[in-house]
Amino acid sequence: MPRQTHTLTVSCPDQSGLIATITACIAESGGNILNLAQHTATDIGMFFCRISFSGEDSFTDERFSESFSKIAKRFSMEWGFYNDAKKKRVALLVSKTSHCLYEILLKHADRELDCEIPVIISNHPNLAHIASSFHIPFFQVDVAKGKAEYEQDLEEILAKYDIDLIVLARYMQVMSSEFCAKWDKKIINIHHGFLPAFKGAKPYHQAWQKGVKIIGATGHFATADLDQGPIIFQDVIRVADTRSIDEFISMGKDVERRVLVEAVRRYLSHSIFLYEGRTFVIE
Amino acid sequence: MPRQTHTLTVSCPDQSGLIATITACIAESGGNILNLAQHTATDIGMFFCRISFSGEDSFTDERFSESFSKIAKRFSMEWGFYNDAKKKRVALLVSKTSHCLYEILLKHADRELDCEIPVIISNHPNLAHIASSFHIPFFQVDVAKGKAEYEQDLEEILAKYDIDLIVLARYMQVMSSEFCAKWDKKIINIHHGFLPAFKGAKPYHQAWQKGVKIIGATGHFATADLDQGPIIFQDVIRVADTRSIDEFISMGKDVERRVLVEAVRRYLSHSIFLYEGRTFVIE
Amino acid sequence: MPRQTHTLTVSCPDQSGLIATITACIAESGGNILNLAQHTATDIGMFFCRISFSGEDSFTDERFSESFSKIAKRFSMEWGFYNDAKKKRVALLVSKTSHCLYEILLKHADRELDCEIPVIISNHPNLAHIASSFHIPFFQVDVAKGKAEYEQDLEEILAKYDIDLIVLARYMQVMSSEFCAKWDKKIINIHHGFLPAFKGAKPYHQAWQKGVKIIGATGHFATADLDQGPIIFQDVIRVADTRSIDEFISMGKDVERRVLVEAVRRYLSHSIFLYEGRTFVIE
Amino acid sequence: MPRQTHTLTVSCPDQSGLIATITACIAESGGNILNLAQHTATDIGMFFCRISFSGEDSFTDERFSESFSKIAKRFSMEWGFYNDAKKKRVALLVSKTSHCLYEILLKHADRELDCEIPVIISNHPNLAHIASSFHIPFFQVDVAKGKAEYEQDLEEILAKYDIDLIVLARYMQVMSSEFCAKWDKKIINIHHGFLPAFKGAKPYHQAWQKGVKIIGATGHFATADLDQGPIIFQDVIRVADTRSIDEFISMGKDVERRVLVEAVRRYLSHSIFLYEGRTFVIE
Repeated sequence: MPRQTHTLTVSCPDQSGLIATITACIAESGGNILNLAQHTATDIGMFFCRISFSGEDSFTDERFSESFSKIAKRFSMEWGFYNDAKKKRVALLVSKTSHCLYEILLKHADRELDCEIPVIISNHPNLAHIASSFHIPFFQVDVAKGKAEYEQDLEEILAKYDIDLIVLARYMQVMSSEFCAKWDKKIINIHHGFLPAFKGAKPYHQAWQKGVKIIGATGHFATADLDQGPIIFQDVIRVADTRSIDEFISMGKDVERRVLVEAVRRYLSHSIFLYEGRTFVIE
Repeated sequence: MPRQTHTLTVSCPDQSGLIATITACIAESGGNILNLAQHTATDIGMFFCRISFSGEDSFTDERFSESFSKIAKRFSMEWGFYNDAKKKRVALLVSKTSHCLYEILLKHADRELDCEIPVIISNHPNLAHIASSFHIPFFQVDVAKGKAEYEQDLEEILAKYDIDLIVLARYMQVMSSEFCAKWDKKIINIHHGFLPAFKGAKPYHQAWQKGVKIIGATGHFATADLDQGPIIFQDVIRVADTRSIDEFISMGKDVERRVLVEAVRRYLSHSIFLYEGRTFVIE
Repeated sequence: MPRQTHTLTVSCPDQSGLIATITACIAESGGNILNLAQHTATDIGMFFCRISFSGEDSFTDERFSESFSKIAKRFSMEWGFYNDAKKKRVALLVSKTSHCLYEILLKHADRELDCEIPVIISNHPNLAHIASSFHIPFFQVDVAKGKAEYEQDLEEILAKYDIDLIVLARYMQVMSSEFCAKWDKKIINIHHGFLPAFKGAKPYHQAWQKGVKIIGATGHFATADLDQGPIIFQDVIRVADTRSIDEFISMGKDVERRVLVEAVRRYLSHSIFLYEGRTFVIE
Repeated sequence: MPRQTHTLTVSCPDQSGLIATITACIAESGGNILNLAQHTATDIGMFFCRISFSGEDSFTDERFSESFSKIAKRFSMEWGFYNDAKKKRVALLVSKTSHCLYEILLKHADRELDCEIPVIISNHPNLAHIASSFHIPFFQVDVAKGKAEYEQDLEEILAKYDIDLIVLARYMQVMSSEFCAKWDKKIINIHHGFLPAFKGAKPYHQAWQKGVKIIGATGHFATADLDQGPIIFQDVIRVADTRSIDEFISMGKDVERRVLVEAVRRYLSHSIFLYEGRTFVIE
């Protein structure tokens, strides 16, 4: 039987001896490091580190947490400690467009997204058949009943399925600032433009009219400030000037779906650090 | 002796029979088409066409112009007609940074930029030695004497060398709106950001603070509206979050230099069409 | 009602007046050119041209074919003439892996592949459920009964569905040389390596052991000579040395599926010219 | 005064506690880790690690080496220990083509290559002027006098300038197997093809005739087996089928020069690990 693996994430002001101290604590607790990624952002003097390790028989989560919390206090660390056996539970929110939904479901089926997907929620009935064919419960919410009521319905479904992360897979509704605040850093959105350019509606139309030569998509945490949340992943594609707006939209779909999957993957692997409004992804 | 080649560019509202009419006129004038690139932008109903052709002994520029001007009038065409033997004369304007200057000079020496470069102008003395080693006259202008006077000096040098196109190769001065208007569509600038994001000063700092995952550069026509002129070419490079601002600047240099060279190349090959504030590059 | 559109493809030794002659014939037949792409390969003195045009009411396919055949004879042209309303009928052949099959079906549903897909054939039952969910007949063939018999079964299915093009979407069987000859230039295969490197089995293993820094996939016409047929499209992805062979395989899937779709798209748009064992794709 | 920095590289069969042991040794010797990159290649069970660290006043190279050699012995490690203040001395070998030479000299002048370049050697006089303008001694060697004699001349120059690394910047001579063996893993070559495809002469001609859609270049260690040495870096560029062989050559130059610079940079940062004929670059 394979031993359980764990992930530890640490960020703090840079100082001497951090790695030696952290790795000694892991070794003394009976952990064996499988992978260590570390970065010191010299522009802001911050240290970021992500370690995955397996535990000997003697290793227990509680004892490690207790030991590490003392170190964390000493160095003013923000830290996270995850047992990789406990999968994150992800809700997919969709509207009418299927390409991002299909991509996540297919990558999940291919074991490239290490999570559970217990529920799909939509403000339209159109994609219910896809949920069916992947054997996932599908709920339709009614936006027309008023934002507060509808978000209450949403919360009930999310609570029922014990959801950890919300993924907006081309979900065409803006969340209230209360909702965003409650799910802070737990909502991932795909914006079909290369942020910070082309915020808001119809980004491909904007891009075409500006005559840009490259279009892109941005996976980011949703915040109350539309399309302004911290960026998790971006990708682009070159577009010839012979392409129409419709072709921009069509070509953009491939970028959107791969950006969204990669953003979710980065979240699930605990690779995203947040500091002063931007992310540092350390892998 | 190779026959002279010519380039014809045409844009007009789309309508039936344009290509047949244009190509028949070329054939009747004794021209043989080497390359034809054509695009109809269906979003705006515009036709763009660029044709290069060689002339038989009987072909004369004057007679062709006369014949074609009748067609142009009939179809409300904007058109350009160029004898490829007449090279464009390009002035390079630089400040202290050498990477774009070197790139243009090396590509020119390698015959990848089909123009003459009779003069290099700078507001600093730092790069004079590069001009020397490529045997090109170097002039230093004095910005401190006042914008009007200094731009007058600039104009005199440009006139003396009979300049067709000004290339701002990381030239750290904003031109007056009078100057931009006079040289409308004849000044190419390189902006070290992926426009329309990150206009203005220190785009790499802006990009780092925003946490973007891809940085870029933009070659565009300079207009009075800073970094807002029509985009000619753009390219990007992926940046890891482990990169510092200084590394952004350093990595960006490679993107800047190749974007600027490609923007100039597109100009020299008469591939850039302008319509309602954006370019259509047809190759 | 939109007028019917047609596509004309022409290749021949380069000579004067080709475009003017071709476009005049189209105009005289009542055709209006929508798009013309042309290239003269100077290394071999060959002219390639692809024209799409709509027809006036007076336009008939038969009369145009008759007129053009005279021109074709005069200039020793190879040519093709297609009524775009007549969709190509494509058979998909698959084994156990689903990513290429899904991609083609989803792009087809999104109207990005302009063809009909009347049948899916496999040597395994595994993907039958996908065919079902897209409402396409699925046939399982029995390779074990002997190559000749099994290919006979295949031919019967292909005949029954009046197939124009066979797409091997990760179909893990090599076709006989007789079969390849019969379906010459009508079988498109996806090879999961950057040809001509890494022919044959387990290309990702080969690539990993060689330590290449970039992996790719190749869409090509299948010929009797394994993985040696003319290349239609290729794409690549950068791989870090920290990636395992399994990760190569997983990352490669995204490249494979987009290469196969693009190869099929190029075929359907009549953009592929063949000359001396290689393709010239003119768009 | 900034403290001296050091780089430690370690590779060995994977086993428990490696990172904790290594980092503890650094900490006990008075070193402070700045950056740690580590990878376990699970396909072959090998551990690779590269650590840069600064030393306290009490840190001495000798004492650290002594301490670490005991650990290395215990775990059967291959290891390297470098004082970053001691720059590598690099000889550039060139023939007639200047783009790779210019690129290295310009990147070096821009402080992007952390080495010394005390000498340029060529079998032709053509590029002497570039050496001059960068104030670097230039030697012309005479290949015609016979391989043994000429390589002896080469060795004398390399010895005189105390060279650590030879960079073949489009040097059009094959080295003898004795020479390659003596300078094993100390000669970096740029091949103008995407290895392992297109080995040997005229790779762009081979690529064009095969009709590939992407061309590339490969930076690798030179070995007696032509173009077969371990790959250090590769990059590619998409080529349209409308490009001629000459355009392949011209476009390829940009790829070649950036691949060569990156290959040299990886060497200078001690990021290249070799195992069973391939490299693992860990950064």
